[in-house]
Amino acid sequence: MIKAAVIGGSGYTGSELARILCRHPEISLEAMTSRQNAGVPVSKVLPTLKGFTDLTFEAQLSEAGDYDLVFLATPHGASMAIAPGLLARGIKVIDLSGDYRLSDPQCYAKWYGHPHTDLDGLSKAVFGMAELNRDAIARAGLVANPGCYPTCSVLPLAPLFAGKLVEPKVIIDAKSGTSGAGAEPTKATHHPDCGSSIIPYKVVGHRHTPEIKMALESVAGQAMGVVFTPHLLPIVRGMLTTSYVTLKKDMSKDEIAKVYDSYYSGRRFVRRVGIPSIPATVGSNFAEVGFELADMGTVVVMGALDNLMKGAAGQAVQNANIMFGLDEAVGLDYPGLGV
Amino acid sequence: MIKAAVIGGSGYTGSELARILCRHPEISLEAMTSRQNAGVPVSKVLPTLKGFTDLTFEAQLSEAGDYDLVFLATPHGASMAIAPGLLARGIKVIDLSGDYRLSDPQCYAKWYGHPHTDLDGLSKAVFGMAELNRDAIARAGLVANPGCYPTCSVLPLAPLFAGKLVEPKVIIDAKSGTSGAGAEPTKATHHPDCGSSIIPYKVVGHRHTPEIKMALESVAGQAMGVVFTPHLLPIVRGMLTTSYVTLKKDMSKDEIAKVYDSYYSGRRFVRRVGIPSIPATVGSNFAEVGFELADMGTVVVMGALDNLMKGAAGQAVQNANIMFGLDEAVGLDYPGLGV
Amino acid sequence: MIKAAVIGGSGYTGSELARILCRHPEISLEAMTSRQNAGVPVSKVLPTLKGFTDLTFEAQLSEAGDYDLVFLATPHGASMAIAPGLLARGIKVIDLSGDYRLSDPQCYAKWYGHPHTDLDGLSKAVFGMAELNRDAIARAGLVANPGCYPTCSVLPLAPLFAGKLVEPKVIIDAKSGTSGAGAEPTKATHHPDCGSSIIPYKVVGHRHTPEIKMALESVAGQAMGVVFTPHLLPIVRGMLTTSYVTLKKDMSKDEIAKVYDSYYSGRRFVRRVGIPSIPATVGSNFAEVGFELADMGTVVVMGALDNLMKGAAGQAVQNANIMFGLDEAVGLDYPGLGV
Amino acid sequence: MIKAAVIGGSGYTGSELARILCRHPEISLEAMTSRQNAGVPVSKVLPTLKGFTDLTFEAQLSEAGDYDLVFLATPHGASMAIAPGLLARGIKVIDLSGDYRLSDPQCYAKWYGHPHTDLDGLSKAVFGMAELNRDAIARAGLVANPGCYPTCSVLPLAPLFAGKLVEPKVIIDAKSGTSGAGAEPTKATHHPDCGSSIIPYKVVGHRHTPEIKMALESVAGQAMGVVFTPHLLPIVRGMLTTSYVTLKKDMSKDEIAKVYDSYYSGRRFVRRVGIPSIPATVGSNFAEVGFELADMGTVVVMGALDNLMKGAAGQAVQNANIMFGLDEAVGLDYPGLGV
Repeated sequence: MIKAAVIGGSGYTGSELARILCRHPEISLEAMTSRQNAGVPVSKVLPTLKGFTDLTFEAQLSEAGDYDLVFLATPHGASMAIAPGLLARGIKVIDLSGDYRLSDPQCYAKWYGHPHTDLDGLSKAVFGMAELNRDAIARAGLVANPGCYPTCSVLPLAPLFAGKLVEPKVIIDAKSGTSGAGAEPTKATHHPDCGSSIIPYKVVGHRHTPEIKMALESVAGQAMGVVFTPHLLPIVRGMLTTSYVTLKKDMSKDEIAKVYDSYYSGRRFVRRVGIPSIPATVGSNFAEVGFELADMGTVVVMGALDNLMKGAAGQAVQNANIMFGLDEAVGLDYPGLGV
Repeated sequence: MIKAAVIGGSGYTGSELARILCRHPEISLEAMTSRQNAGVPVSKVLPTLKGFTDLTFEAQLSEAGDYDLVFLATPHGASMAIAPGLLARGIKVIDLSGDYRLSDPQCYAKWYGHPHTDLDGLSKAVFGMAELNRDAIARAGLVANPGCYPTCSVLPLAPLFAGKLVEPKVIIDAKSGTSGAGAEPTKATHHPDCGSSIIPYKVVGHRHTPEIKMALESVAGQAMGVVFTPHLLPIVRGMLTTSYVTLKKDMSKDEIAKVYDSYYSGRRFVRRVGIPSIPATVGSNFAEVGFELADMGTVVVMGALDNLMKGAAGQAVQNANIMFGLDEAVGLDYPGLGV
Repeated sequence: MIKAAVIGGSGYTGSELARILCRHPEISLEAMTSRQNAGVPVSKVLPTLKGFTDLTFEAQLSEAGDYDLVFLATPHGASMAIAPGLLARGIKVIDLSGDYRLSDPQCYAKWYGHPHTDLDGLSKAVFGMAELNRDAIARAGLVANPGCYPTCSVLPLAPLFAGKLVEPKVIIDAKSGTSGAGAEPTKATHHPDCGSSIIPYKVVGHRHTPEIKMALESVAGQAMGVVFTPHLLPIVRGMLTTSYVTLKKDMSKDEIAKVYDSYYSGRRFVRRVGIPSIPATVGSNFAEVGFELADMGTVVVMGALDNLMKGAAGQAVQNANIMFGLDEAVGLDYPGLGV
Repeated sequence: MIKAAVIGGSGYTGSELARILCRHPEISLEAMTSRQNAGVPVSKVLPTLKGFTDLTFEAQLSEAGDYDLVFLATPHGASMAIAPGLLARGIKVIDLSGDYRLSDPQCYAKWYGHPHTDLDGLSKAVFGMAELNRDAIARAGLVANPGCYPTCSVLPLAPLFAGKLVEPKVIIDAKSGTSGAGAEPTKATHHPDCGSSIIPYKVVGHRHTPEIKMALESVAGQAMGVVFTPHLLPIVRGMLTTSYVTLKKDMSKDEIAKVYDSYYSGRRFVRRVGIPSIPATVGSNFAEVGFELADMGTVVVMGALDNLMKGAAGQAVQNANIMFGLDEAVGLDYPGLGV
């Protein structure tokens, strides 16, 4: 068994990791930390886990702990203070914050508002979009787990950019459930304000923009123009992106479909459909992708996933599987709720 | 024109008062206060009011202001510090907080956690449930505007208790939209927690319990047993109560219907229907009431209303109309959205 | 008083017309028809209107009725069979279906699947987007009331196209509440399917696409490329559009803001804000518009409105006001719910 | 492996069975029938199952099929025509319709509107509330899987009635997500009508009333008065009941808690908590129960579960496990989503 710990276990991402790992056949969850819940049984804070774990939240991870893998479900800025020490102990690290996602430290400093303090780690970190980067992930000691928006944006677009079939610019209109905002109450997620609306927010200023740009440029092998508009949806779990790209030359729907099917051939967790459906993915690690041809050579590209699963904790466990030489689907191979 | 001011104008209740008063033909909104928004135009904080009011929020009400009426949309505990001074200036006061609702100061102290500091005001305050108390309201200087739950509980039950047709005990299962919780973000109203659930809360400890009990005992003329269970609904506006009482002797549905129709004869804002509907009341001052006969002589009594309108600001304006000798429906006579 | 009738009064649009007209000071609602509810009091079918109207649904409009104005809240295809007879009787007509919106009969036949049978009416009909077409509406006998999506798309975009500031192509990502789908239950609006999701539908094939194109081309004075993607939102009332256009040359936010403010100067029902809000418009005839500047000279243009009000019945009444020489805001001048 | 088939596989209950069984380690799903989808691959109708099953829907179950177990996810009235033939072939049957739940055929005829045509089957059927009836289920050939409301009502109440601690009468105020209404669109589940409301329906007339009464009387060993009021909630999955019973003599919260903990000792799928939470159960077979003490010796008893899982398909699989001598949790032992 692979011995794992979760740092920052009482947020939504940390809880979701625990929910997955408690039934993972090859990874054993050995410790969870939470500053605010230190000393409290995990199943008291997360009643769904009663009967699934006997762990008690620790204030911080034991120096003596014998872990093979640590998931950092910590806030941006905190991870880069923790990761180097773990790596030095020979522990593999999967960081679910934004700290190691932007390979350019100046870009990091610009979007996160403070300089990066672990340039060595940053240079070695592998961007953990499992379907795009499997080989590098398999060899990585430190994986930067992608954001939910980048995952839901890049997976549906990658086949078109990888094949250089579309112009290097994209408009991404993204819609997220509120759980993406985290467990802390804010004005943005106050039900009377968001519960009967759809709210554009951080229009042109969301931190996931440079991450999407970096990932798409890496796929396309060229510079990319990205317009990214996130919206808050009045649902809890789930995310949908509707993206707009322009074909370089005419293609039929069938031809494009073949590009997708070939690109994702053999990949368990990306499913091509007509119109992606959030409920089909909820509770699972699956992403759905689909497209339509529109006016002016525009391809309308759509993607759906569960932001806490494929958009966060699920993909992190998928990455862990890859890092430890397991089948990527171990412990994750169950369908979405559908309804 | 009756000159009115609203103290505490940036919460949901205060905004709703402004929304109503800006198109009231007989009451003129002359001032609004808000500590946090002092100096800011009202229509900047409440964009829906752009073009409807030119007021700017004041930090506190001018001592020199010539008002006929002040609405207190202040937190519990604050109103009783403000009301006496206004009354001394000859200004009529409608308090939308809980400060003057419980006529017994010991009961107030028990449920609100601090002693009442305006016993004189408390002894003179009139409980402003407009359909039950019109004459006293018409003569009052200080009206305690009822809570949303008490309004939605008492209106549907009053005809049965007034006629002494049922045993003096009631179970009230109440369901409220989240706007009842106010404008301040909390864990309870965090969308990921409440947006896909119905949550029982303060199950035996809600402050509206003694208020309901007091109001029903006043209607029934005898002591009353009350079990009151509030639930938080994943909708923004609207409230439904389902209450259970026991007939003293057999009655037909028709006989009971006549009791209701007679009791509310001539009252504009209470409408008897088969099954009350929240959307039929949203955006309006109407309450819907209905009932069914069940096993064991039980009457299942239902009520629906818009918690910010008939459950708060709408009823406050209805009370203002009554206090100033206007028709109770002036400025409020429009139907709910329906859909 | 202007005497009006509504044909097709039991759908959402017809009911909303009745809801508005029952408190309109200059227009009197004299008749409503509904095949399925003929003979039933309107207030029995629409309980919110109890006390606001004494009308009974008629099977069809009396030949002898003395009406100044008839609203057609009929399905597509039915209006063009009814309108000519009314016009021949000297009655003004506002059609809320799609029958008279597309000025080109071949375009109509293509998108609606049957030929247009009233070419004369079609040639005379005025497209009733009140803020763009006021003078023509004032002189019209037959007004084609715009669709909800076109209204919510065109109003936010018109200032940029009218000023020829952006390239003649646009991507419109639109999100609508479910009431836009009408009162008839379908798989698309079955709550278990749509209640916890956002669903792209009729991607590239929605009938509002040519209507948007026609309206924008009319504003821009040139041919236009339009990509329009509608999504079904899990809310009942309200609509948001997020559109993407490209500036011809650099402009600052302030310069663009001035373009908007100048274009809509003096128009009561369009309000420029930072980020448009659905709840701020719900229950009202107001539309909110806003924009942000993004990468690649892209302007992200946003609009919000209540699809049953400004998107349907509200705009129809606004058009009626204009047709009869009233202030366009008569009977509509109240703010949105806000919360 | 136990060979199983599902009859009526394209409704919500049938799909949910497939979703569970496709990853059950001891039961193999060998066939699914659907009249409307005969000949279509299951994963085309239920995309979430792509990669989890290769079955194609059959019009009806093969006479020659070698099944150990058949789940009937058929409408009321259809099951009793199918079950006898299966039982005659030595196949165990779990019926998820209402056909075998009411042991009294006259009660069945009264509530379902037609006589029962399989009195022999009815006399042998075991009511499959797994926590109450395990031994009988273990020996049964035909199990009547309980309704969602009865499960969510009876589990939280059973400990108090079994211990004869409360009076033999109960008020049950129940709230259900819309998926309980099934996959067929109706006016009741039309999103514009139900999406921003809570709607009492079939007040005093719901078919689950006699089922609850029968189950509670069986637990209590005496006749029981039941008032049952269902409400439709604007969520998709999940159900909550709030029930009201009266203690025969004073008990403390601790004493009552011990009654619960003892009653459900060793039962995997019932979890006692303070306030039951729908999201804690969604996607799982767990039910949460809790209680509070209120005025007049009233115990407010609450329960929550996922209506498609513990309220339908999950409990059916739990029953299958028991019928075949497996641990009741096999294939069901995963936690709810929590968020």
